[in-house]
Amino acid sequence: MASTAAPSIETPPSSKVLTIDSINLRIRNVEYAVRGELAIRAEELKARIEKGDKTVKCKNIVNCNIGNPQQLKQQPITFFRQVAALTEYPELLDPKHADKVTPLFPADAVERAREILNSAGGAIGAYSHSQGIRAIRDHVAQFIEARDGFPADPNLLYLTAGASSGVQQILQLLISHPNVGVMIPIPQYPLYTASLALNNCHAVPYYLDEAREWCMDLKELEQSLTEARDRGVEVRALVIINPGNPTGQSLTWNNMAEVVEFCHRHKLVLLADEVYQTNIYLPETRPFHSFKKVLRSAKDPAIRDGLELVSFHSISKGVVGECGRRGGYFECTNLDPLVLEQIYKMASVNLCPNVQGQILVDLMVKPPQPGSASYPLYQSETQGIYESLKRRSVRLHTAFNSMEGFSCNPAEGAMYLFPSITLSPKAIAAAEAAGKNPDDFYCLAMLDATGVCVIPGSGFGQKPGTIHFRFIADLKKFHCEFMDKYRD
Amino acid sequence: MASTAAPSIETPPSSKVLTIDSINLRIRNVEYAVRGELAIRAEELKARIEKGDKTVKCKNIVNCNIGNPQQLKQQPITFFRQVAALTEYPELLDPKHADKVTPLFPADAVERAREILNSAGGAIGAYSHSQGIRAIRDHVAQFIEARDGFPADPNLLYLTAGASSGVQQILQLLISHPNVGVMIPIPQYPLYTASLALNNCHAVPYYLDEAREWCMDLKELEQSLTEARDRGVEVRALVIINPGNPTGQSLTWNNMAEVVEFCHRHKLVLLADEVYQTNIYLPETRPFHSFKKVLRSAKDPAIRDGLELVSFHSISKGVVGECGRRGGYFECTNLDPLVLEQIYKMASVNLCPNVQGQILVDLMVKPPQPGSASYPLYQSETQGIYESLKRRSVRLHTAFNSMEGFSCNPAEGAMYLFPSITLSPKAIAAAEAAGKNPDDFYCLAMLDATGVCVIPGSGFGQKPGTIHFRFIADLKKFHCEFMDKYRD
Repeated sequence: MASTAAPSIETPPSSKVLTIDSINLRIRNVEYAVRGELAIRAEELKARIEKGDKTVKCKNIVNCNIGNPQQLKQQPITFFRQVAALTEYPELLDPKHADKVTPLFPADAVERAREILNSAGGAIGAYSHSQGIRAIRDHVAQFIEARDGFPADPNLLYLTAGASSGVQQILQLLISHPNVGVMIPIPQYPLYTASLALNNCHAVPYYLDEAREWCMDLKELEQSLTEARDRGVEVRALVIINPGNPTGQSLTWNNMAEVVEFCHRHKLVLLADEVYQTNIYLPETRPFHSFKKVLRSAKDPAIRDGLELVSFHSISKGVVGECGRRGGYFECTNLDPLVLEQIYKMASVNLCPNVQGQILVDLMVKPPQPGSASYPLYQSETQGIYESLKRRSVRLHTAFNSMEGFSCNPAEGAMYLFPSITLSPKAIAAAEAAGKNPDDFYCLAMLDATGVCVIPGSGFGQKPGTIHFRFIADLKKFHCEFMDKYRD
Repeated sequence: MASTAAPSIETPPSSKVLTIDSINLRIRNVEYAVRGELAIRAEELKARIEKGDKTVKCKNIVNCNIGNPQQLKQQPITFFRQVAALTEYPELLDPKHADKVTPLFPADAVERAREILNSAGGAIGAYSHSQGIRAIRDHVAQFIEARDGFPADPNLLYLTAGASSGVQQILQLLISHPNVGVMIPIPQYPLYTASLALNNCHAVPYYLDEAREWCMDLKELEQSLTEARDRGVEVRALVIINPGNPTGQSLTWNNMAEVVEFCHRHKLVLLADEVYQTNIYLPETRPFHSFKKVLRSAKDPAIRDGLELVSFHSISKGVVGECGRRGGYFECTNLDPLVLEQIYKMASVNLCPNVQGQILVDLMVKPPQPGSASYPLYQSETQGIYESLKRRSVRLHTAFNSMEGFSCNPAEGAMYLFPSITLSPKAIAAAEAAGKNPDDFYCLAMLDATGVCVIPGSGFGQKPGTIHFRFIADLKKFHCEFMDKYRD
């Protein structure tokens, strides 16, 4: 499974129906750096370490190639898991077990499990409504209303198996022919390039402005759009990830309002990936605003009630970090009702999102409230995780800016930093000799030396001539040695 | 959300980017009967009943439009849910709680939860390996080996979010251009026509032979393939659902061996949907055989080691019935290694199947064994469910064949019967006057009268001039009244 090498010349032509040449070329064209060469090399090293291979330099592998909080020892929220366990085994809710269950589960977890089971018709093992359990969508709508101060409609909410699944559904819907284009930020999370390749769609890249804390530069947006439309591409949508992955910025209200106006003026659907909305590290100066709120606050009713927006959220990130459950939702704003019917039909073909993922969405949007039995623990756990994420981001940012060759924007949000690095000509020559991009070369060297697996900037996209990596871990020692080794 | 009516003539042209005319036409072309007009009407009636509307004839709605065992009160297996609860809240495994936990959970459930947590790296909230947790794939491989008597390789197993998700992945892979065709049985489960429409692929239908217990008729297969290839369609694969949905047959070994030989001779990939493999009601005369076993038993090594086969299984059906969790797997046999790499890459883009779904797969393939604490209860629960499913199938079959106009093959497997019915000219005329197919007309009348929602045969496909429905519930009273009303 591991190697992606081309077949050796001795391999006879395959007699199979399905060969690398006969399968869907769009699948073959998908590039997916998050689990690319670095991840495969990391798996190999891990297997060798487990077999006791002493030639491996590092002692263990730390996977920082994918935002996977619980793999990096972030603990789940106790209340969430208590409710999940009770919904899995409702026998525990029988009063005859109260003497044993009461000391193990707080009363509000028991109460909440009952409510959820009730709203699922008593059977979390059954297919739910294809859009997700109605009561859970009601809670999501209340969460959005409280967050934004504008109404939200549970009929316009679709629970999904993680944000990725929602993004793929919406991209598939809006790409109707091979000449459709979708604007995506560079750098971007590679799900977008992968999904566009899969749907045979033009990726229309626009660069985030590294010199201004990775904000969206309107001149750049105009230019990128004009170039694409001049080439005859039918650009239909614009994707933004806010807070940014891999770039870690939290956009300002004014910048977002400009983007909303830009999308309206140019007839673009806005796709807002807001999965990191609670990963905000400078809440006073760089709070999170949803694009829904910015849109609904627009003075122009043509924007407010016209601009088509799909917003994505997830249980995988933030202080929740429940990636393995695959839960999330998207909200549709100002979409045509006939188009909404088509989204519902496709959700039906997929039957329903997994119910435990839906339950975690419910818990995320409606956590324990002050005064409830579980609130103090919930509060201390989420605060602890948040402070730890914030501390690490700030520490990393400081570390990068103190290291030779590095330059890094502040950690405003999300879980990542995307520092730029200047390597010596000698290092770049060594990379070339090894047939690698400089960023791949650096990351492979780091993996071998330290066991830390990060993703080279080329996997996310970067301006030509610049070199970046996405980081969520420390690497000072390795870096100093690498710089010394390749000093001219 | 509900209506699928075309916009009324007064509707002004939409000013949206995404309109029913601008979206992906392949999505618009998808037809999905399982949640089509009948299901929408059932939801309307349900809402009206809940609001106290006395004009609705039936008292409650019974959804038999979708195989959803736990919605129809099939109980989950206790051991499975105990393990699931313990993995959700591992705090319960701490020895300090033993005095309370030991009376609530049997020792083997505790042990199993520890094993699963261990194989998930302690964190079921983390993304797993994209193919699924390795230890779980090992158990699936052991299950397949024990079932078939032939080796199975965990590297060739992909855990999925239900069988549907796996089917969609494989179809997407093999449909490389609009002229590809895939043979599908008629009647079929509408996932297949929906997925083929979505991938812009020719559905090449072949009729199952109703006169011979819905077996696969080789002459029919040859004819269908020849016709399609003569039209220039590049037919690449053949789908079979065994035990059959909606037809309920369990194919004989000889019939399967013929099909395997047919696929080999005509260079077709065989896609075997075997999600009902434990729903077998005539085990002596019509046992389940996997296509993997039939293939590996072939005398001709070109078939044995050459025919490309993908087999699908699920936790949603059988005595497990855990639809809401979305768990399943597929096994690849004789696929090209370079193609397998592409399947792995696409699994990576989707990150991983939800981990609780994976855990249920583990429990399904490795249930409590004789001698363990949980075995007696497991045995009595699964036996009870199995007997109940079998009893219902046999009773329904008897009922159908005693009702005017009905003719029905024996219940050999799966959860459905697909009786054919002869309606009076008067009933057919009434249907025509209402602008409906006769089968839609009958089913809508039944829904209104009884609250039972079934799917008309046209949703699955049927020979022209014949009328069927997929049934999993009793309807004698309604049927007699309907036949009397439309008697000539």
